[in-house]
Amino acid sequence: MKSMTTGEIASLINGNLSGLPDMVISGVNRIESARQGELAFYSDDKFLQYLNDSNASCIIVPKSFERTPAENQCYIYSANPYEDFVAILKFIESTKPQLSPGIHPGAVIGGNCSISELASIGPGAVIGDNCIIGDNVRIYPNAVIYNNVRIGANTVIHSNAVCCFDTEIGQNCIIYPGAVLGSEGFGYLENKTDGSYSRIPQLGNVVLGDDVEVGANTTIDRAIAGSTFIGNGVKLDNLIQIGHNCEIGEHTAIAAQTGISGSVKVGNRNRFGGQVGLAGHLFTADDVTLIAQSGVSKSIAKPGVYFGAPAKEIRKAFRIEAAMRQLPDALSELHNLKKQVRKLEEKG
Amino acid sequence: MKSMTTGEIASLINGNLSGLPDMVISGVNRIESARQGELAFYSDDKFLQYLNDSNASCIIVPKSFERTPAENQCYIYSANPYEDFVAILKFIESTKPQLSPGIHPGAVIGGNCSISELASIGPGAVIGDNCIIGDNVRIYPNAVIYNNVRIGANTVIHSNAVCCFDTEIGQNCIIYPGAVLGSEGFGYLENKTDGSYSRIPQLGNVVLGDDVEVGANTTIDRAIAGSTFIGNGVKLDNLIQIGHNCEIGEHTAIAAQTGISGSVKVGNRNRFGGQVGLAGHLFTADDVTLIAQSGVSKSIAKPGVYFGAPAKEIRKAFRIEAAMRQLPDALSELHNLKKQVRKLEEKG
Amino acid sequence: MKSMTTGEIASLINGNLSGLPDMVISGVNRIESARQGELAFYSDDKFLQYLNDSNASCIIVPKSFERTPAENQCYIYSANPYEDFVAILKFIESTKPQLSPGIHPGAVIGGNCSISELASIGPGAVIGDNCIIGDNVRIYPNAVIYNNVRIGANTVIHSNAVCCFDTEIGQNCIIYPGAVLGSEGFGYLENKTDGSYSRIPQLGNVVLGDDVEVGANTTIDRAIAGSTFIGNGVKLDNLIQIGHNCEIGEHTAIAAQTGISGSVKVGNRNRFGGQVGLAGHLFTADDVTLIAQSGVSKSIAKPGVYFGAPAKEIRKAFRIEAAMRQLPDALSELHNLKKQVRKLEEKG
Repeated sequence: MKSMTTGEIASLINGNLSGLPDMVISGVNRIESARQGELAFYSDDKFLQYLNDSNASCIIVPKSFERTPAENQCYIYSANPYEDFVAILKFIESTKPQLSPGIHPGAVIGGNCSISELASIGPGAVIGDNCIIGDNVRIYPNAVIYNNVRIGANTVIHSNAVCCFDTEIGQNCIIYPGAVLGSEGFGYLENKTDGSYSRIPQLGNVVLGDDVEVGANTTIDRAIAGSTFIGNGVKLDNLIQIGHNCEIGEHTAIAAQTGISGSVKVGNRNRFGGQVGLAGHLFTADDVTLIAQSGVSKSIAKPGVYFGAPAKEIRKAFRIEAAMRQLPDALSELHNLKKQVRKLEEKG
Repeated sequence: MKSMTTGEIASLINGNLSGLPDMVISGVNRIESARQGELAFYSDDKFLQYLNDSNASCIIVPKSFERTPAENQCYIYSANPYEDFVAILKFIESTKPQLSPGIHPGAVIGGNCSISELASIGPGAVIGDNCIIGDNVRIYPNAVIYNNVRIGANTVIHSNAVCCFDTEIGQNCIIYPGAVLGSEGFGYLENKTDGSYSRIPQLGNVVLGDDVEVGANTTIDRAIAGSTFIGNGVKLDNLIQIGHNCEIGEHTAIAAQTGISGSVKVGNRNRFGGQVGLAGHLFTADDVTLIAQSGVSKSIAKPGVYFGAPAKEIRKAFRIEAAMRQLPDALSELHNLKKQVRKLEEKG
Repeated sequence: MKSMTTGEIASLINGNLSGLPDMVISGVNRIESARQGELAFYSDDKFLQYLNDSNASCIIVPKSFERTPAENQCYIYSANPYEDFVAILKFIESTKPQLSPGIHPGAVIGGNCSISELASIGPGAVIGDNCIIGDNVRIYPNAVIYNNVRIGANTVIHSNAVCCFDTEIGQNCIIYPGAVLGSEGFGYLENKTDGSYSRIPQLGNVVLGDDVEVGANTTIDRAIAGSTFIGNGVKLDNLIQIGHNCEIGEHTAIAAQTGISGSVKVGNRNRFGGQVGLAGHLFTADDVTLIAQSGVSKSIAKPGVYFGAPAKEIRKAFRIEAAMRQLPDALSELHNLKKQVRKLEEKG
């Protein structure tokens, strides 16, 4: 980052500064790792020890915090230290150099494309025929865009990502490195005589709304016919699989390595932990949360938190989990009880 | 797709048309999403409501279906609506423009290669030394082929896929974007004094039979010595891991995110659901099915359906799963029973 | 491999040769797959049948092995057959042709870079601005290095791997094809009114120590601030996810498809099986082993072997697993016992 003074940072977030306004900040870090010259934030009593030990030169602290900084340190008092820290991250990011607009001579552009003059296309990127690329789109080196792809304004496609035929991407999306949009779905006709498969052409596409993020090496398959839809504001982490003809509702967030089989309809504002799996052709209601590693084999019609494989309403899942821990002892008790009852019967 | 008339479609699949033969069809879709001008199919009573509400202009229906189409709609009567729908998908796909034969000037070709004049190699693709590339092979932009790789006729390598040294690929295969064939297996010698590892060179290769498909971002490791074999007709979904020295039997199909450890021998016609895991050095019989998320730690010598972690014969697995759901109540009953027995003992 | 004689092989590992010293060896293989002209090793009585049936021309056997080879076969007696086999693999690998030093004219190099004259950069590789690339570094075709990346001596970056902004890589590392270092972590602020997310810029980086290997299509996210650290000697298999701000201790080895959530601190010499998951913000002690498919939701403070989801000390986990198998029968017994007790009560 370009250096800033403590005074500039405080005024950027409208915070009250305690300490020198001309200390130079040249980095940001977590409070426990920050070194001299770096900015951090503190918002939770749990981490008071980190604050006490911190070498950060400037720390954003809660308004209500009653201490003053050590010598050579600044505090900036804030109503929302974390959000203000994020605001500063955003400011710093906005000052970073970007790919400059224009098409690098080492890029290859197909026929009949419409590419905004404000878009930037890096070296080694390959764009197919009939593509439409909006304002301020940035396509990083060696990304590949097949034919008939549309990319909305301000969207970023990182290196080695691939957008296959007919993919449509909205505005303000980020496709991280190695992500694959629109590869063919896993669909075959089985030949009953020898168990062999013949491929079903997948002629549909993938459609992303606005503000969607697709993590590194995540794969989203094209529909057999029609579209695989990813709603506005959906955030997908790395190494996720989305099967053909899925629909993912708006503002749903999914953690890494989760897999969603074909034709699943996920509701709005769902939150899935990592390594979750959903079987094909089911749906989830709006506002469903799935804890990590859950396995869903039936539709979930009610909002709530679910866990386990097969996934159950969370209190039920935890009750079973607790019972399982008691199970080995319970089996011994059962064994003893059988003996006692046998004795009673003999006596009777 | 290029437009077709309802009459052309009916004659393509030898079906009886009810309705106008000159309606123009310019797309295919699922029956519930189809719009005017699109073709769909209907084959299952379960989806009758979709049929009733469908805006599709033309629907392939079962021969035995006793209704006639609404105005502005066509039916085509067929013995196998789904298979005929797939036949039309295949026809449409065959009419799509392909990479034209020849080597794009933006591709880089190594020394001593034998490349068919009928092969097409896209811009940014890099081919190493001593490679043999057959007729009609299509290598998409930015795919990388290392040295000494053979690729059989009609095989397609999609963008950003990587085939490492010595990989051998049969005919009619499809390698989807980002797949990695022949990366080094995970093999180390552990130094017992400090727990550090030293790498064991992996000098074997990966050999794919004919008609194999490898999904997007799937990885298949080269053998330490000898070959990792993928049999004819094997279909691998996205994000799968196949360890070094595995052998996958013919016509086996594996769903996304499944992982197979090193030196596993999978039988013919196995079907694995998503997120399944197999431990190293085991085998499965022919015709084994593993339900999604199963974990296999021992060889499976009998054909059948298995489920769970560790995987069990499916009826046993379901019996245990059902019992687990009763477990919390059973523990209360056990507790009560203990009290009752104590009372009886005191009385006795 | 270039051919060697049996005599050359024996002298390379200081082993005693029984058989002809001038037999030509042109390949290495596993004992059960080896053909004439190939070298294999035998170290475990379990595989005696493989030895008996082997077509290998030369087999490294234990010093104590009391047999002599068949005609047309050689034995080399060794104190450590497996380690000597690996030594030969290393020798063979060292004789393989490498990328020659220098920058291929088809590579694109940014401004202000410092690149060793001994480094090799393949065609289609793209290097950003301000990068520092050490001696003997090999960057394979179409790999992408963003701005401000440092790569230590002897490190190899395979094709289509991506190193994002500010990544630091030590010496003697191997980054396999398609791996992504330094993509943005999965961090958002949730807007409580509509459930939408706004992205938190991830301004930290990824730092790899020396002798680190990162498997094909594995992803390691950059820190929100500060660094995601991968310690010296860490070995990561394929398709692994490491979240932002994680720290992985030295000589830890992790099998394929394991996922580690953000801000996890893994100890030294941990060994994780495949498909393991760790929840965020926890730690593991040194010398922790996690069996495949385990799910860790709490910190593990004691060295040892753990298994299950949630992960438990292994003996406890196996006791529960064994109990579960008895559970369906136990429930019937419980049911019978209830009847017996009721009868006793009625009688009483």
